[in-house]
Amino acid sequence: MESNIKRKELNVSAIENGTVIDHISQGKVLQVVKILGLESFEDQIYLGANLESKKFGKKGIIKVSNRFFQEDDINRIALVSPTATIIEIRDYDIIKKFNVQVPEKVAGIVKCINPKCVTNNQKIPTKFEVYTIDDRLRLKCHYCEKFTNQENFEFNQG
Amino acid sequence: MESNIKRKELNVSAIENGTVIDHISQGKVLQVVKILGLESFEDQIYLGANLESKKFGKKGIIKVSNRFFQEDDINRIALVSPTATIIEIRDYDIIKKFNVQVPEKVAGIVKCINPKCVTNNQKIPTKFEVYTIDDRLRLKCHYCEKFTNQENFEFNQG
Repeated sequence: MESNIKRKELNVSAIENGTVIDHISQGKVLQVVKILGLESFEDQIYLGANLESKKFGKKGIIKVSNRFFQEDDINRIALVSPTATIIEIRDYDIIKKFNVQVPEKVAGIVKCINPKCVTNNQKIPTKFEVYTIDDRLRLKCHYCEKFTNQENFEFNQG
Repeated sequence: MESNIKRKELNVSAIENGTVIDHISQGKVLQVVKILGLESFEDQIYLGANLESKKFGKKGIIKVSNRFFQEDDINRIALVSPTATIIEIRDYDIIKKFNVQVPEKVAGIVKCINPKCVTNNQKIPTKFEVYTIDDRLRLKCHYCEKFTNQENFEFNQG
């Protein structure tokens, strides 16, 4: 019994109220922390990296107390880790669970890679169409039509 | 009973073999991850930040599977978080537990803040005496005698 409890604890740290971001792509946990601005967050946070996953080989997980994410943040997460699952917790119970969806369009959350793009030179928010090519995301700029590839995504913080 | 187990899981994620770094100073968890080179580590890691601590108000904790730290890394941790405790785990049991000690001298792990220092211009490892002034660490360079303050520590990675 003792050893069963110990083993269970290996995978689970419950939070009372807040959000669990599960099934984060391997190697992306710290990037998700960064794009959500959690580095300076002051309530409890748990992270797990390189955990075994039935679905994806290895995965990461983030549990944030007393924080619930809105559409912009969910889209940020989807752009970094399209496999992620969002689980909202109230009083230790799951009240909502859904997979992030890569949006068709994103506005104002990623920078355009083209230094000459109007969005890098005037106070105009970026606007992209999202393409998935060979399992990798590419953003096509509404203004300059240049593509920004997944490995070059630079996020404006929320 | 169910709710007791849930609450216990809030604070504990056991690892089978590896090291727990407990009582990390508030706000320093991600810096400890960085100085230990854990960003690219491939075994299981758990982090907790902003956790309640009986001793220090709030604290962080890091649990790293299958990794045991040597003197240089322990000194790095001590320079970032002098309050940290190191706990070594084998087969879920604690085999060693100790507080980090701020060393009297450190060699080769922090850069000298003085751009003209010989250590920044030739391949000479840095060497410092450690001072604690008003609860803050300062390193006095053996070569140029300039002080590098805690908030300016820049670590060479292990």
